[in-house]
Amino acid sequence: MHQNGILKKEDNFSSWYNEILKRAGILDVRYPVKGEYVWYPYGLKLRNLIYNILRSLMDKEHEEVLFPLLIRRDELLKEKEHIKGFEDEVFWVTHGGSTELDIPLALRPTSETAIYPVFKLWIRSHRDLPIRVYQIVNTFRYETKHTRPLIRVREITSFKEAHTAHASRAEAEEQIKKAVALYKLFFDQLAVPYVITKRPSWDKFPGAEYSIAFDTLMPDGRTMQIATIHLLGENFARTFDIRYEAEDGSSKLVNQTCYGISERCVAAVIAVHGDEHGLILPPKVAPIQVVIVPIIFSGDKNGSGMEEVKEACISLYEALKEADVRVILDDSPERPGAKYYYWEMKGVPLRIELGPRDLNNNSCVFVRRDDFRKTQVSLNTAVPEVKKTLDDIQRHLYARAKEKLASNIINIEDSKMGKMVEMDELRKAVRNSIISLTLCDNESCGKELEDTLGVSVLGEVYEDKGVAEGEGSGKKRCVICTRSGSRVLVARTY
Amino acid sequence: MHQNGILKKEDNFSSWYNEILKRAGILDVRYPVKGEYVWYPYGLKLRNLIYNILRSLMDKEHEEVLFPLLIRRDELLKEKEHIKGFEDEVFWVTHGGSTELDIPLALRPTSETAIYPVFKLWIRSHRDLPIRVYQIVNTFRYETKHTRPLIRVREITSFKEAHTAHASRAEAEEQIKKAVALYKLFFDQLAVPYVITKRPSWDKFPGAEYSIAFDTLMPDGRTMQIATIHLLGENFARTFDIRYEAEDGSSKLVNQTCYGISERCVAAVIAVHGDEHGLILPPKVAPIQVVIVPIIFSGDKNGSGMEEVKEACISLYEALKEADVRVILDDSPERPGAKYYYWEMKGVPLRIELGPRDLNNNSCVFVRRDDFRKTQVSLNTAVPEVKKTLDDIQRHLYARAKEKLASNIINIEDSKMGKMVEMDELRKAVRNSIISLTLCDNESCGKELEDTLGVSVLGEVYEDKGVAEGEGSGKKRCVICTRSGSRVLVARTY
Repeated sequence: MHQNGILKKEDNFSSWYNEILKRAGILDVRYPVKGEYVWYPYGLKLRNLIYNILRSLMDKEHEEVLFPLLIRRDELLKEKEHIKGFEDEVFWVTHGGSTELDIPLALRPTSETAIYPVFKLWIRSHRDLPIRVYQIVNTFRYETKHTRPLIRVREITSFKEAHTAHASRAEAEEQIKKAVALYKLFFDQLAVPYVITKRPSWDKFPGAEYSIAFDTLMPDGRTMQIATIHLLGENFARTFDIRYEAEDGSSKLVNQTCYGISERCVAAVIAVHGDEHGLILPPKVAPIQVVIVPIIFSGDKNGSGMEEVKEACISLYEALKEADVRVILDDSPERPGAKYYYWEMKGVPLRIELGPRDLNNNSCVFVRRDDFRKTQVSLNTAVPEVKKTLDDIQRHLYARAKEKLASNIINIEDSKMGKMVEMDELRKAVRNSIISLTLCDNESCGKELEDTLGVSVLGEVYEDKGVAEGEGSGKKRCVICTRSGSRVLVARTY
Repeated sequence: MHQNGILKKEDNFSSWYNEILKRAGILDVRYPVKGEYVWYPYGLKLRNLIYNILRSLMDKEHEEVLFPLLIRRDELLKEKEHIKGFEDEVFWVTHGGSTELDIPLALRPTSETAIYPVFKLWIRSHRDLPIRVYQIVNTFRYETKHTRPLIRVREITSFKEAHTAHASRAEAEEQIKKAVALYKLFFDQLAVPYVITKRPSWDKFPGAEYSIAFDTLMPDGRTMQIATIHLLGENFARTFDIRYEAEDGSSKLVNQTCYGISERCVAAVIAVHGDEHGLILPPKVAPIQVVIVPIIFSGDKNGSGMEEVKEACISLYEALKEADVRVILDDSPERPGAKYYYWEMKGVPLRIELGPRDLNNNSCVFVRRDDFRKTQVSLNTAVPEVKKTLDDIQRHLYARAKEKLASNIINIEDSKMGKMVEMDELRKAVRNSIISLTLCDNESCGKELEDTLGVSVLGEVYEDKGVAEGEGSGKKRCVICTRSGSRVLVARTY
């Protein structure tokens, strides 16, 4: 830990993360209820920018709705598998004032059982389909494990959940593909790289036929699930009797999907890009994209030029604002060094320094937050250069993060496998990486692998199989039982 | 009730309101928990536009934050007067899964007791002051009375609450004035007229020194409170020990205010402007400001000109979109009459009809939703004319609503007063109107008036005293006890 900086995130991610949430002004963790946190203004601005991107992507083919928080106990219990997955995690409202409620009300852990009884009312005919809606809401989980801001919480303050209903399974499966494509676009804008897998049967969403998930790699070598997409098929439709009249007049069950993203997407942005100087925010989501720091020495005997510097800074500030850049001018009385430190902590992608000498050359100095590279830039072209540089920072952050993820996926060759012998190697490999290995379909083999290594099976890679395939083209053999299997990703997870 | 229309709102406001919420697509009231409702996409768009205006006004001098929903019981109980005001209305979470919680958690009825313990942590020195924050959150009240969508609910899905802390009472009082000015700007944009009063002592916010409120007049002659602003003084600061180090080094309590607006502002927009054809939305908050309806007769033998009409509609649509007008082109196969009916119900402020005859004249027809006036407009000037017409509709709606409010404030002359004699007259006057009369300071007189007439005392007019003053300049005498008093507004309320 150097004087003003914080830990390196790879050395102690937990401490780094907590420190940065506080010092960059993201969350106050001192709220006196476990697993609940307070969003500071700066953190909330970041969250809002991220969710605005998500909202604008969703709005293209979904309609935003808003359902109530409180779900009647009897509705929540209707779908047997679903409630099994959530029963230990539900907060229950049992009293209004001093009156005991007739029917306890759950704080939504997710909204299937709030929304689907209403879908039953909304859907009459094939002409009402497809329905594609989403909402951004607070949801609640009674987490008994160690909680962690944005990652494992009791109140997810901003859960984006989408729910769709279709006339056929083929259309529902088509929607799954669209949702995957949409989430890719979203994480591309956050510059957060991901692997996409189909979760093993024992880890799917309670009530779903199958679940697709996006995971990213955190600095401590564990993966974090950042998005999930579920094919519900007719399961919930059967439970909630959601039917439509088909063109031929027959009554049919709808086919459903749902997919969600929580504020873990904010945690991912912080964790993936930050460094020992603080946050590094991708320009597309940075509340402040550019900070202008006038280089003015108050003790300067020869005070001449100071007014001109201030004026040049103001006019650059105005020009950038005009060009829709989120810019601030830090003309506080702090020393420049203190300002650098402060705005680096906040992750502002680009700093512009402008002093008397720069002004004499009709120029300013760009300092990038991603690599601290300095460039002299003419004031005449400063505005387009800012735009170009922000784009470049966005690209560079993503490329760097993708490379890091790719270099941390280790392919375990089938030929090297053999039950007892290789477990130590696997254990070592999985400490900081995602590993790709062959596993058969049996839950018992999956569970044995998970227990032995202390990992989770993320599942088969959903697309871009390239990242996870072993090199050999021979028959793939399960790392546990050596029977025929297929390639899966495995990692320590959050 | 004519064939396609709905009731007149003045005849049966309740039925009119429920009908319009459903048919205009604002809220689905069939959610199976009392006092909880589902926002339809169109209703939510309206809500979001309204809250975006509020947010942009708040952002000028406040920072947005987000505090948790759940409040520990011991925190909620700390401020004695505050909890007295809310204890019967709080929903309690008592269980997580099947585990009973050590400390029951309240669903916030409002967030003073969530925020102020954290203010204590945030405020150290006079340099930290003032603090001005706001959040837009769901809040909960266990309403036992008859619930009504957006007006009396168990979940307020979008409560905007602001909380400020200042170094002195004078600064806090200054903030009260700023909040009043800010809320005026807000309701001006919704074209919702209001009276502003200082609530009588027995009706102030629990824990406040005094409360200022905005009320609007509903079609059934009752007033609805649509905003409140409270001077908390040092009350909460004392309870939560919120102190700062003053410039002279002494430790002082902060002085606080809070002020809030709930989704009743959406109810007000609906109730104040709508008519027997449906919603009438002020252009500033209308999700769709203009609908273009091509006048195409499918049975037209002479099909010529149809393609040209379609093209002209599309190019007008593109031009309006380009000019940032929220416009849609309704090219569905419905008959024009059905389209008129549909979009009138949705409250779209301006309809543009364009048929072959119009096109021959290089023109189109504007039909205003506020007064159904029709105008022939040249296609060359259609875009600026749309802007002008929308502005004019906004102004006209507000002027009409203000006039209606003003004409429904009845001044009861002091000279006419005398205890028993006049009660019948008052009872009659207050049926459809706000009345202005003189009342003394004694709570007992106020309560007697309230009980006798079945009304509430809104309070002394806070500004624009003109609207509520009696004409006589003589000594003002309490309508109950005839002792010296001051003018107050009185009404039946929601």
